[in-house]
Amino acid sequence: MIQDNQRITAGMIVIGDEILSGRTKDVNIGAVADFCTDLGIDLTEVRIVSDDMDSIVEAVNALRSRFTYVFTSGGIGPTHDDITADAIARAFGVALPINAQAREMLESRWKQTGTEVNEARLRMARIPEGADLIVNSVSAAPGFRIGNVHVMAGVPVIMRAMLEALAPTLKGGRKVLSVTIRAAVGEGTVGGPLGRLQEEFPDVKMGSYPQMGRDRVMTELVLRSADEPRLNEAAARVRDMVAAAHAKAGIMPPDSE
Amino acid sequence: MIQDNQRITAGMIVIGDEILSGRTKDVNIGAVADFCTDLGIDLTEVRIVSDDMDSIVEAVNALRSRFTYVFTSGGIGPTHDDITADAIARAFGVALPINAQAREMLESRWKQTGTEVNEARLRMARIPEGADLIVNSVSAAPGFRIGNVHVMAGVPVIMRAMLEALAPTLKGGRKVLSVTIRAAVGEGTVGGPLGRLQEEFPDVKMGSYPQMGRDRVMTELVLRSADEPRLNEAAARVRDMVAAAHAKAGIMPPDSE
Repeated sequence: MIQDNQRITAGMIVIGDEILSGRTKDVNIGAVADFCTDLGIDLTEVRIVSDDMDSIVEAVNALRSRFTYVFTSGGIGPTHDDITADAIARAFGVALPINAQAREMLESRWKQTGTEVNEARLRMARIPEGADLIVNSVSAAPGFRIGNVHVMAGVPVIMRAMLEALAPTLKGGRKVLSVTIRAAVGEGTVGGPLGRLQEEFPDVKMGSYPQMGRDRVMTELVLRSADEPRLNEAAARVRDMVAAAHAKAGIMPPDSE
Repeated sequence: MIQDNQRITAGMIVIGDEILSGRTKDVNIGAVADFCTDLGIDLTEVRIVSDDMDSIVEAVNALRSRFTYVFTSGGIGPTHDDITADAIARAFGVALPINAQAREMLESRWKQTGTEVNEARLRMARIPEGADLIVNSVSAAPGFRIGNVHVMAGVPVIMRAMLEALAPTLKGGRKVLSVTIRAAVGEGTVGGPLGRLQEEFPDVKMGSYPQMGRDRVMTELVLRSADEPRLNEAAARVRDMVAAAHAKAGIMPPDSE
């Protein structure tokens, strides 16, 4: 693990039976992962839970005590199965009143679009006491932040708009840099020497990823560190190791990036 | 929640820093979700954890005591960052010896392909004591099952081959059937009456999913139950409710499926 005093961590909770049944294929995890990496935030754990009160409360409480930030997606719409706001209010032990600002934002949008105000739609204005709204440019229905928990919509285009809105409010860590080195040999060929280099460079995290389905075996080695000089030093050593493996196998080196 | 004596549940653990950094976008969760739904198994929770011993052990122990089955993907290759087998052995408190059958399968494949046998590659033959192998038709490296935990590769084509191999060994539940009803109005319009129908049919789970980015607002209502007559009864009521909402809004009904 990269040890760093400036390490900022995050957990994510995806809420929705439709993901667990396979009906909907999640794309929000990848978006939050990219978002965190760009900001130097270390996304450390993700949980997907069903639309069930106890499951959501348990996941929220487990992750909010462990990580700098928690991001949730899903379950903030107007129907009976949208219970994320209720679960967050319960997890924090606060009330869930209609929020005047959220109601105003929604009613103003509904007036423009000629949408009827009803009890179901007003569910979307219920915001846990003490939370700040996370506005989004796509729909008028806001997400919210309470403590270190950021509650966002499950619809991908809305979730991404909410991430954009909250980015300036988050503290980023030291950005983790990465170097990718391609080897034209299998993982098993570089595994031994790579493991020894990892021991020499505990502050540079080395990952190995086999590439399947091409016309020859390839391995991508990814080095990650917030310390650029150490990263470059380790990368030079890994490149030398790969060159030696290529020479031994009698193959020309592929491109590195 | 659907209450059912024949309810078979599953949890999934995705292991890999590359998913959490955003470098690789997971597709295994969707594949396991579809697989479970097809077999009548209720996938109830998914966790994504990093290549970290304590994180993997904690997730395995949390989920294996809670669900009928646990499926893991990732971390069983030949490099130092592949520590899933070590973590599973630790979670179960068993040794992790070289498994003779796994070694034979690997060496036989390596002989065919002219691949050198080395220490890194032999890591893939280390199997927790008491586990059964899960063979796959794509690569010779096996996964394994110990207790109710099924350990599979992270490479999607190999993971899917392993799922195929283990399907006949799993006990399926009563298959959950679903009916999808499309409404040409927003979620907020059907939210109230849908919630009341959900109260009338607690044994039929009703989900509501907004459809964005089309030329008009659409909502998909998905009803799920293992009890076909009750499902059909609830579906008829929801169709009536949607027809009334369409009539009120002066729109022609869209197709239902």
